[in-house]
Amino acid sequence: MMRTHYCGLLTEAQIDQTVTLCGWVHRRRDHGGVIFLDMRDRDGLVQVVIDPDTPEAFATADKVRSEFVLKITGRVRKRYEGTENANMVSGQIEVLGKEIEVLASSETPPFPLNDENTTISEDIRLKYRFLDIRRPEMLDRLRFRSKVTNLIRNYLDDHGFLDVETPILTRATPEGARDYLVPSRVSNGSFYALPQSPQLFKQLLMVGGIDRYYQIAKCFRDEDLRADRQPEFTQIDVETSFLNDDEIMDLMEGMTTKMFKDLLNIEFGGKFQKMPYSEAMRDYASDKPDLRIPLKLVDVADLMQSVEFKVFAGPAKDPKGRVAALRVPNANTLSRSQIDDYTKFVGIYGAKGLAYIKVNELEKGIEGLQSPIVKFIEPIVLQLLERVGAQNGDIVFFGADKAKIVNDALGALRVKIGHDLKLSTCEWAPLWVVDFPMFEETDDGRWTSVHHPFTLPKSSVEDVKNNPGDALSVAYDMVLNGTEIGGGSLRIHTLEMQKAIFEALGISDEEAEDKFSFLLDALKYGAPPHGGLAFGLDRLVMLMTGAQSIRDVIAFPKTKTAECPLTEAPAPVEANQLRDLGIRLREQKKQEA
Amino acid sequence: MMRTHYCGLLTEAQIDQTVTLCGWVHRRRDHGGVIFLDMRDRDGLVQVVIDPDTPEAFATADKVRSEFVLKITGRVRKRYEGTENANMVSGQIEVLGKEIEVLASSETPPFPLNDENTTISEDIRLKYRFLDIRRPEMLDRLRFRSKVTNLIRNYLDDHGFLDVETPILTRATPEGARDYLVPSRVSNGSFYALPQSPQLFKQLLMVGGIDRYYQIAKCFRDEDLRADRQPEFTQIDVETSFLNDDEIMDLMEGMTTKMFKDLLNIEFGGKFQKMPYSEAMRDYASDKPDLRIPLKLVDVADLMQSVEFKVFAGPAKDPKGRVAALRVPNANTLSRSQIDDYTKFVGIYGAKGLAYIKVNELEKGIEGLQSPIVKFIEPIVLQLLERVGAQNGDIVFFGADKAKIVNDALGALRVKIGHDLKLSTCEWAPLWVVDFPMFEETDDGRWTSVHHPFTLPKSSVEDVKNNPGDALSVAYDMVLNGTEIGGGSLRIHTLEMQKAIFEALGISDEEAEDKFSFLLDALKYGAPPHGGLAFGLDRLVMLMTGAQSIRDVIAFPKTKTAECPLTEAPAPVEANQLRDLGIRLREQKKQEA
Repeated sequence: MMRTHYCGLLTEAQIDQTVTLCGWVHRRRDHGGVIFLDMRDRDGLVQVVIDPDTPEAFATADKVRSEFVLKITGRVRKRYEGTENANMVSGQIEVLGKEIEVLASSETPPFPLNDENTTISEDIRLKYRFLDIRRPEMLDRLRFRSKVTNLIRNYLDDHGFLDVETPILTRATPEGARDYLVPSRVSNGSFYALPQSPQLFKQLLMVGGIDRYYQIAKCFRDEDLRADRQPEFTQIDVETSFLNDDEIMDLMEGMTTKMFKDLLNIEFGGKFQKMPYSEAMRDYASDKPDLRIPLKLVDVADLMQSVEFKVFAGPAKDPKGRVAALRVPNANTLSRSQIDDYTKFVGIYGAKGLAYIKVNELEKGIEGLQSPIVKFIEPIVLQLLERVGAQNGDIVFFGADKAKIVNDALGALRVKIGHDLKLSTCEWAPLWVVDFPMFEETDDGRWTSVHHPFTLPKSSVEDVKNNPGDALSVAYDMVLNGTEIGGGSLRIHTLEMQKAIFEALGISDEEAEDKFSFLLDALKYGAPPHGGLAFGLDRLVMLMTGAQSIRDVIAFPKTKTAECPLTEAPAPVEANQLRDLGIRLREQKKQEA
Repeated sequence: MMRTHYCGLLTEAQIDQTVTLCGWVHRRRDHGGVIFLDMRDRDGLVQVVIDPDTPEAFATADKVRSEFVLKITGRVRKRYEGTENANMVSGQIEVLGKEIEVLASSETPPFPLNDENTTISEDIRLKYRFLDIRRPEMLDRLRFRSKVTNLIRNYLDDHGFLDVETPILTRATPEGARDYLVPSRVSNGSFYALPQSPQLFKQLLMVGGIDRYYQIAKCFRDEDLRADRQPEFTQIDVETSFLNDDEIMDLMEGMTTKMFKDLLNIEFGGKFQKMPYSEAMRDYASDKPDLRIPLKLVDVADLMQSVEFKVFAGPAKDPKGRVAALRVPNANTLSRSQIDDYTKFVGIYGAKGLAYIKVNELEKGIEGLQSPIVKFIEPIVLQLLERVGAQNGDIVFFGADKAKIVNDALGALRVKIGHDLKLSTCEWAPLWVVDFPMFEETDDGRWTSVHHPFTLPKSSVEDVKNNPGDALSVAYDMVLNGTEIGGGSLRIHTLEMQKAIFEALGISDEEAEDKFSFLLDALKYGAPPHGGLAFGLDRLVMLMTGAQSIRDVIAFPKTKTAECPLTEAPAPVEANQLRDLGIRLREQKKQEA
């Protein structure tokens, strides 16, 4: 046996025992003629002391450097009084090293692993990921992720879910993002697509009677990468038959609650609120409201329609416009430059300005207000302040523009100000957002799915055909602290409804048959009512560990340009590989021409 | 709530309760003026009786057909005496249906789901996989697979392993099969490869201090498919640091033993035997011996060298030849035509014939033997029979050819005869095969890895350089009933040894640097001694469920031509997708020319 204990787990319980440890030299110090080695393994650090009484071990210890891999045998003893380290599990003891074997040496690492204060560029971290994950914070995140998936699997297993694998080499799926394609060698000219999600397969499993399915599934989207996206990401994918939306939400809420309780000792306290999409947009200007912040928007378009000031009156009269107010209590002390910063901030979202009223002394009427806009809206300003419930000391911000701009700008401002002014009323605020619209209108007047074309509407087939814009879906998103961590819906399980939805989306019978014939087929042979949901695992772990980037919770992530600095993937391939696949590069073509 | 109970789980415990069931109509019968519906869900069948007293339900029941999806509410009652069905969990009761709702209708399925005796072509089963998996035997296999993965995950979690995901979009890996490639849109002309295994990543995780890693990982090989291969398959992938080979084998043996005990109630009885590769080849002519069959081969080349008969003497004198005997006790009653069949059988493996001696009356000497070859080997035949331990009633078969042909032929014959004659001494015979050679010689005299180039040899760097052919590896395969279900090794963890192996394999420094620079880098910075193993999950589940094909334990498998009859993947794609990826089809080129 190579070792008897993990370094980081040694305590006073092992005092006087002879132990053998394996691990890395985290730090080496000479002090008073003896050598101190901080030895590190997955479970933490322990201090090893080697003194000249054991000349062979001492000579070896003298030569080792940071990140050497050692096997050390020695005796555990209590540290001298005053030298204990309360920050380490093993801080009460040390190991008097008797034998040292160098299992592997190390060059000087490209960045220090024993200095938490060094900032290392992410490119270097990713290129030397095998060193980066030695750092306790990375190791702890990967360990936490493993605990999360284990807990989820056992929860779902306990609730009768079967873990079923769906294919990675498959047909293009309908999520709407770009597919990664894999050329077929056997059928040159044909391509597999990597799945954007197992959506259709999990529905087929329900048609197949699996009843309760889950999978922690890799999904792929060839998108231009934003800060928080990866070309491949991991989804906790769930589907059930014969359950209604409330039952599905209950199951998933139970799982989330258990996860936070068992792994972080966080209690959410009671059932999650279920908020209709319309209410979320009205009050929070967001379909993923951060309920830690108690501020709400108030619509004031009806009042603003009558004012002469076009900045307000225009959007107020526009059916696609929105005019809303955001009252922030006790914030009339915000300085000119703070307000300028917020004005710039909402500019990111397309807002052309940020009107405000400081409510200093309401009892003085208009005189008691401080604002560049009061003069333009004098006739209605007091009525307006009453509507928003303004009180002395408040500041009220306004947004007036196309609804999307107002929502994006004021929705973000609400959260930002809330955090800046420390208005949070709690640390964790989960909720369900429900009753989403089925469709949204594109700029060219067509309808697209808000979720996906397999989402069950609350309306009848007739209503969907006649008034797609009014149709709501039986969809639900789990939102935590302003982040959507999961979402799903009941699915269509009859051919008639599925065809009506395709029709509303302008998907022709031919296109439907071409892309989804197997789903349409499946709906002919007794498809059960079914529905499910998917959580984004990466984002969930990021939220739970407080990581700053999704890349910090993935062992081997890609950069924003979808590259892996470690393996240098993607990379050129041999000409004969392309020939086997029946493809050539476009550049070659040009050169030939 | 849509249902109160699963159909297949109702028992006498629910008698007199009103229950609501959801499921499929497995079978409908009219009998004596009442309608009997066998309702099916994931957990089995229950009989529902609808009589004309409930005219509405009766009218509905009258219209339903096989595979309709129903919701039925009714009262559980004991079946009339004599009508119980001991083969069903619910066989003592039936449900008197009061209300029936048709949740979905069904066209007549392309094959009956209620007739176990119908043979359905696999193409049809795969095209309508969503119906095929409704069949209890398919459902049970998928459920069993889920139990296997759950057990494995918990076992590994209990033993301190972390579940870490490695990338699917990555660099070409060195397993030697053809890679599936994914063209990059961001870097036209570059390609990701889908991993043939997470081998290098799991080694990097060990260098990163993860200590114990596992993953149930999708792997991809673009091979010409044999009956038991799939383009994507699933591997139970394990890697550990600071453990020796015996410790790793112990851990994996514990997992396998638990799996068979907990899921199949099979006890292996004691530790697995560890058999050196050389012994396995000598005695069983196979590196995955089926130890249920007690027959062993005996080498007789030394005796055969002296005979005139070239069929034996030739291979006996050839250093690459083998001459071996297989004694089968009490089998001298095999008929001429049975022996002819075995001769054809070994012909599949390249054997040019199948010599034999029937040992009828050994006490009569050569006279007591019955054989077409005795006359050619008279001088040594009695000595030979003594060597193999022949007794009256035996038959002894002979193989003489290149060693590979003899091993393939006699190795397979050993197992076939063993099964034919029911010689098995047990139902389950697991073992480890160890001490594999590091290298095997190719036809053109080069060396290739028997496992992969990262396998640790038992020899020193010097010995590897001087005598690669003699080097053994610290590799181990778990073999069960003649099938390799898992295999692994300790890995090289020093740069010096890794370079020596690349050199022996004729991999130049440039090629090594080009393909594996990140691994070579990792070995510079303190790589711990490490090793691991991978199990083929599909094959393991196939073995445990007794399925006839690997496709029967995969929800959505591909055909032998790597196609999915359900989704029709792979499929042609749009021209603009190829343009985005910077590739074109070779056919297009020809048409343009």
